[in-house]
Amino acid sequence: MSEIRKDPVVNKWVITLDDKEFSPKKDAKLEPSPKTHDPECPFCTGNEAGCGREIASVRTGDKWQVRVVPNNRPYLRVETPLKRRGEGMFDTVSDTGANEVIIETPVHNADLDTIDLSGVTSIVEMYRDRINDLARDTRLEYMLIFKNRGSGAGGKISHLNSQLMAMPVVPQSVQDEIDCSKKYFDLKKRCVYCDIVENERMFKERVVADTGKYLLIAPFASRAPFEMWILPAFHSSHFNHINGEEAASLARILKDAVARLNKAVGMPAYNYMIHTAPVKSGSLVHYHWHIEILPRLRPIAGFEWGSGFCINPTFPEEAAAYLRDVL
Amino acid sequence: MSEIRKDPVVNKWVITLDDKEFSPKKDAKLEPSPKTHDPECPFCTGNEAGCGREIASVRTGDKWQVRVVPNNRPYLRVETPLKRRGEGMFDTVSDTGANEVIIETPVHNADLDTIDLSGVTSIVEMYRDRINDLARDTRLEYMLIFKNRGSGAGGKISHLNSQLMAMPVVPQSVQDEIDCSKKYFDLKKRCVYCDIVENERMFKERVVADTGKYLLIAPFASRAPFEMWILPAFHSSHFNHINGEEAASLARILKDAVARLNKAVGMPAYNYMIHTAPVKSGSLVHYHWHIEILPRLRPIAGFEWGSGFCINPTFPEEAAAYLRDVL
Repeated sequence: MSEIRKDPVVNKWVITLDDKEFSPKKDAKLEPSPKTHDPECPFCTGNEAGCGREIASVRTGDKWQVRVVPNNRPYLRVETPLKRRGEGMFDTVSDTGANEVIIETPVHNADLDTIDLSGVTSIVEMYRDRINDLARDTRLEYMLIFKNRGSGAGGKISHLNSQLMAMPVVPQSVQDEIDCSKKYFDLKKRCVYCDIVENERMFKERVVADTGKYLLIAPFASRAPFEMWILPAFHSSHFNHINGEEAASLARILKDAVARLNKAVGMPAYNYMIHTAPVKSGSLVHYHWHIEILPRLRPIAGFEWGSGFCINPTFPEEAAAYLRDVL
Repeated sequence: MSEIRKDPVVNKWVITLDDKEFSPKKDAKLEPSPKTHDPECPFCTGNEAGCGREIASVRTGDKWQVRVVPNNRPYLRVETPLKRRGEGMFDTVSDTGANEVIIETPVHNADLDTIDLSGVTSIVEMYRDRINDLARDTRLEYMLIFKNRGSGAGGKISHLNSQLMAMPVVPQSVQDEIDCSKKYFDLKKRCVYCDIVENERMFKERVVADTGKYLLIAPFASRAPFEMWILPAFHSSHFNHINGEEAASLARILKDAVARLNKAVGMPAYNYMIHTAPVKSGSLVHYHWHIEILPRLRPIAGFEWGSGFCINPTFPEEAAAYLRDVL
């Protein structure tokens, strides 16, 4: 059985099939260190001085829990004056921006599922606070928060961290979502993501977990096996507007999602990315922030990258059933 | 030095920098077989019977030069009746379509740069003829022709081949190009790709080769090191409308592109994809078919795949200079 599914928001199509021969790629698995502290690790306690000026931190007494430092090989720089330039028909923008690293725990081999709830809440609040702080620089249009977990997902350091890239442009995936959700709203006068929440709760088969405030689903047109989305059940276009209670609730479902993934597929490499409206836009009725979690269980074929047309060897309904029952 | 570049057609942004530490990924290299014939290879002469019913071929006397066979593990099937269905708010299409494999040479270890010009012309004409044949099935909207060369690019069989996926939907990358080039045309009354050809010929620094009929460039917002585009210098929205002379000229520049790539980076894994207007649309004044060649010299980071925001460690102008002088 196979069928072609359209992403409910953008124009992406996915061939969804039930490939009995598919099995998660072995070399994409994490090899967690047995050590809780590694003196060689740049993010472990004792090596703080090597990370450059601390931008922000969460501390308990004299111990830090979360620390934000500059990326030591930044792609974008706050010192560069913003310049938008044309060169014939071509457009460039200066490399104005910021690259920060959020070190999410002092424990060398911790993952989100082993950190306690208050620790994960601090991480989520730090994402929010860093966006809000950088938003004061009116040259910047977008703050991209993403995690590359494991070398199979592009992660260079095994100690748990996420990255923030503050940029003078909006990434295509988010712009596409904004444009397409606007068209949906113009037609139906409803937010497409609110509709997804309602439809998924009605169908139930793709719901992995539901905390009331947040829904964890295997999305209808999952691009890859065990892809998951965290959707707020309340309408909000800006992740950086969450309050303390919403952050704690988000921390709970994020922790839960990673725990299920680690249990279901044995600690795969994964990426996640927060999709949120551009900081300078007002609240949008048609857009809805969310988190997309992409396990890296198989290599991305070039034609998938080039065409935006994906093949997923696992039905999301099956992945959801498995993820639902695994804990 | 680094800057952010916008793709001249779509809303993709690329951080373009000059990373002295970048070096092409070693495990993405091809390991060409020393054998011209391998009895174990399903695509070698003698094993034709195992490939299923031959769909088309080019022959010289009793020897085939190019052969088209069904993919033995098809994702899409002509037998499936076309059905577009809604399930709540979600949209699906049946798996109606075709998956074909174009076996491009009888020689086991040949690549496009070692096959003679008439052989490559036959391959290009076969791409065109298969599209035109499948276009008679009015249920199908798009014929995606792509090559996965080497396991690092998703290729499963080393014997030179391309694939054709005929689908009842248009892939997102092409739809985005059509939509964005339409906006450009509405504004300027010119085809954006014709403008690219003119601008690149004026600037010269990103031109790798120019045969008069076709231009080979390192595109302004290259997503990856040594990315190349082949653009017809004449306006045409449909690849499948090329005549014999245009096919021979295309074969020459395609052969040239692969030869330069193999020489410059030592036989990397690569993908290419023909971007062409949907078969059922009439000729479009605003769209222009082209071929995008993506060498796989570094892994695709998850956030690049998820965000459409890329980082290219090599300036296209430098890549172009290198590719221009390498032969």
